[in-house]
Amino acid sequence: MSFAKLDAASRKLEALEHALSILGADEATHMAVGGGEKRAEAMAELAGMHHQQATAPVIADWIDAAKSEDLEPDQRLAVGEFERDYVNATCLPTEFVQRRTTATMRSEQLWRDLRAKGDWDSFLPALEGVIALVREEAGLRAEATGLAPYDALMDQYDPGNRTADIDGVFADLKAFLTDFVPVALDVQDQRLARRPRKTLNAPYPIEKQRELGLAAMRAVGFDFTHGSLAVSHHPFCGGVPSDVRMTTRYRTDEFLSSLMGVLHETGHALYEQGLPKSWSHWPLGKARGMGMHESQSLFVEMQIARSGAFWEFMLPLVHQHLGEDAIPGWDIADILNEVNFVERGYIRVDADEVTYPLHVILRYELEQELVSGKLEASQIPEAWDAKMTEYLGISTINDPKDGPMQDVHWPGGAFGYFPSYTLGAMIAAQLGTAMRKDLPDMDEQMRAGDFSAINQWRGDKVWSQASRFSTPELITRATGEPLNADHFKAHLRKRYGQA
Amino acid sequence: MSFAKLDAASRKLEALEHALSILGADEATHMAVGGGEKRAEAMAELAGMHHQQATAPVIADWIDAAKSEDLEPDQRLAVGEFERDYVNATCLPTEFVQRRTTATMRSEQLWRDLRAKGDWDSFLPALEGVIALVREEAGLRAEATGLAPYDALMDQYDPGNRTADIDGVFADLKAFLTDFVPVALDVQDQRLARRPRKTLNAPYPIEKQRELGLAAMRAVGFDFTHGSLAVSHHPFCGGVPSDVRMTTRYRTDEFLSSLMGVLHETGHALYEQGLPKSWSHWPLGKARGMGMHESQSLFVEMQIARSGAFWEFMLPLVHQHLGEDAIPGWDIADILNEVNFVERGYIRVDADEVTYPLHVILRYELEQELVSGKLEASQIPEAWDAKMTEYLGISTINDPKDGPMQDVHWPGGAFGYFPSYTLGAMIAAQLGTAMRKDLPDMDEQMRAGDFSAINQWRGDKVWSQASRFSTPELITRATGEPLNADHFKAHLRKRYGQA
Repeated sequence: MSFAKLDAASRKLEALEHALSILGADEATHMAVGGGEKRAEAMAELAGMHHQQATAPVIADWIDAAKSEDLEPDQRLAVGEFERDYVNATCLPTEFVQRRTTATMRSEQLWRDLRAKGDWDSFLPALEGVIALVREEAGLRAEATGLAPYDALMDQYDPGNRTADIDGVFADLKAFLTDFVPVALDVQDQRLARRPRKTLNAPYPIEKQRELGLAAMRAVGFDFTHGSLAVSHHPFCGGVPSDVRMTTRYRTDEFLSSLMGVLHETGHALYEQGLPKSWSHWPLGKARGMGMHESQSLFVEMQIARSGAFWEFMLPLVHQHLGEDAIPGWDIADILNEVNFVERGYIRVDADEVTYPLHVILRYELEQELVSGKLEASQIPEAWDAKMTEYLGISTINDPKDGPMQDVHWPGGAFGYFPSYTLGAMIAAQLGTAMRKDLPDMDEQMRAGDFSAINQWRGDKVWSQASRFSTPELITRATGEPLNADHFKAHLRKRYGQA
Repeated sequence: MSFAKLDAASRKLEALEHALSILGADEATHMAVGGGEKRAEAMAELAGMHHQQATAPVIADWIDAAKSEDLEPDQRLAVGEFERDYVNATCLPTEFVQRRTTATMRSEQLWRDLRAKGDWDSFLPALEGVIALVREEAGLRAEATGLAPYDALMDQYDPGNRTADIDGVFADLKAFLTDFVPVALDVQDQRLARRPRKTLNAPYPIEKQRELGLAAMRAVGFDFTHGSLAVSHHPFCGGVPSDVRMTTRYRTDEFLSSLMGVLHETGHALYEQGLPKSWSHWPLGKARGMGMHESQSLFVEMQIARSGAFWEFMLPLVHQHLGEDAIPGWDIADILNEVNFVERGYIRVDADEVTYPLHVILRYELEQELVSGKLEASQIPEAWDAKMTEYLGISTINDPKDGPMQDVHWPGGAFGYFPSYTLGAMIAAQLGTAMRKDLPDMDEQMRAGDFSAINQWRGDKVWSQASRFSTPELITRATGEPLNADHFKAHLRKRYGQA
């Protein structure tokens, strides 16, 4: 049985992925500082073994043979995903992968140094080299998949996403937001004039913040028999579905950024913990893609944890863990003033949910032109500045550090990834609309701290589906319609459009 | 170059060993409880890849070819250790390894259940099965190595150790100890009559005990850039030389057992941290064996940390970390009363350094007869009782739980391992004698908390030598003579023989 051989091979790959995931999480949380060099060597060797096993020509033979075997429906879908992984892993020649790895590693290292200095000119040659390789990669991936070059890049992160579908949705959203941002800011000014932002009663001891975060995780459904929370410099959700490794970081002068970060990562964690367990070793058993994953973290962060209903449940927990005087005189509206604060800014990762998509759409537009050759790297600062001025009314022409040098993605060669962030926000809103139809008392449940029906719905519609369907198919099946910006727009209007 | 191929292959094996070590330490310290099943699957797959790569027939070809290549002296020694590992890994047919693994896993599981109940009769058939397999294994290993069957088992743990050498040393030690134990107990009675044991001022908070343990580790030379201390149910020293994972456990009603445990494990850790870094991926670069490893932990625990000189340095640290009232009215003699308390007991792992070797020699004698067939499993309880009565004056005939059922080694099929514990104690004492010749002011240095010269000596003589020499050769090179029980006897006489 060729399928049985694929099954056995995928158990070996899963073991290597398990090791790489846990070693990666361990590196960021528990590794001694001097252990990094040997850790890097070990992980490179393990990644090499994974690549070698995943790309063995015999896998292609087994896939072909399995297609004509008598399989269960899930097994048939599994073969499709085995093939998808195999094509993705084999479509780049080894010689090219080596060139690209060397170039992007150097470019990333250079970027870390030059970004701090805002030295665009010195960085430009490295970025030009990376973009040349990305064009080459897009061509190779296009050839292997039959997709257009940028679609072929994007398909790695969100299978089935196509510019033909996204262009229109993003154009719609962009038009809405360029009008809506000033409205939201105006509404906020009016609100803050009536209810000014309140002061915090810092310091907030880390151990107490940790207990608060654990309580929030537990409340929204994190399963501590299959995961844990640690500290790392950059928060992440890693590990494996059977043992999800979440991290946060703490500052003692405020507690909301860690708490909201914990809730965001918990959204990722719930997806991993909710995947089907019996075929976790098949590609079919994995989470669908980056956009869908981000939709799950943003569902918890934006649809749940930045809502008034949620804070009716959460505020008492804050008092319980941080003390009655932690935020003296604050009520839920004061919390919402903080967590839903909108402002025009330079930096994507610091942006609120209203302005964030404009940062993403800017990059989505530019990187398509960079991949197609319509735009050259040297033209990025001007193009970036023009779009920032147009979309957000702020200029970056004299500040490359906080302009086109702010993200690691391009220096690292990750083109086609940015749209996933905003697709995630839109999918989260669309799931929210659909869920409210099935669970009209969702707000009541949140007020009561009862997330069981909410998670049951998400588990049925998304988590348990793993990689059974392409991203667009999964959206349609879960919500009854294709991706539609209206739900996200309505969500923003409701939260930010009324005084 | 065949040597270069061995070198590259050993880097892959090292990566898998790195993953297995860190995953193992992680499992005991940070893994979520529900992660165990997938972790076991992943580790079994990784161990399988390791075995497959380590036993590939081409390795034998490379070893043969490398022997006639023009190599550096270290490389030539490395080939010898590559060959030793290869022979050890390939001398058992796969079919046998599978049978043995199944039998020992079942036997261990059964033992965990039946030991608690003291049900020897129900356990006997499983142990008989394991012993039959051990005899078969000893024969296969003897054939592959040209050694006698029991020597072939022992050689896995301490290369070069032979019953021909050890029998005499153990007989000497046994004769000494059967006389000396009553003397030590009598001396202790006299001392305690003059100075009764003092009471502790518990509770000792875990966080303070942790700080004390870290201070002790730091003092005796643990490098925190290449290791850390965590908590686990069973203390261990694991991880990799570049990132040593040490653990301890705490009880709040006393602090000495955790502290002494930490010092013991630090001895293991210093050996790992002191191994040569440039060829850590070769078998030659690894610690020599279990006896030598135990000598390093026991050097810190017995030669250093149970001495009065050490406690002149350590006692102020106890006060600093646990408080001035932690052990009210205690001076160094009171501490030594505790840490060097001698008593006849049933349980090896609870035994003090005077009685411990008798527990080991008993097992060494019995397991040789079990392997040779002179003794059958059914005869163990009587044989065990006879020796316990002869050596320690206590009978176990009605208590198999605390008699022959107390250790996991035999249920797990690990025959030939026990002697390493007492060899370690003797090597540690012999190293102590040799070190004092080179460092006559060793006690002064310990009083001052200065372990640099002591560790330099140990690094030169043992750690940096890695697996360059067999265990007996390494002993002779480090101390100027072969293993000699006189040094351990003198150590015991000095510490326990005078009132």
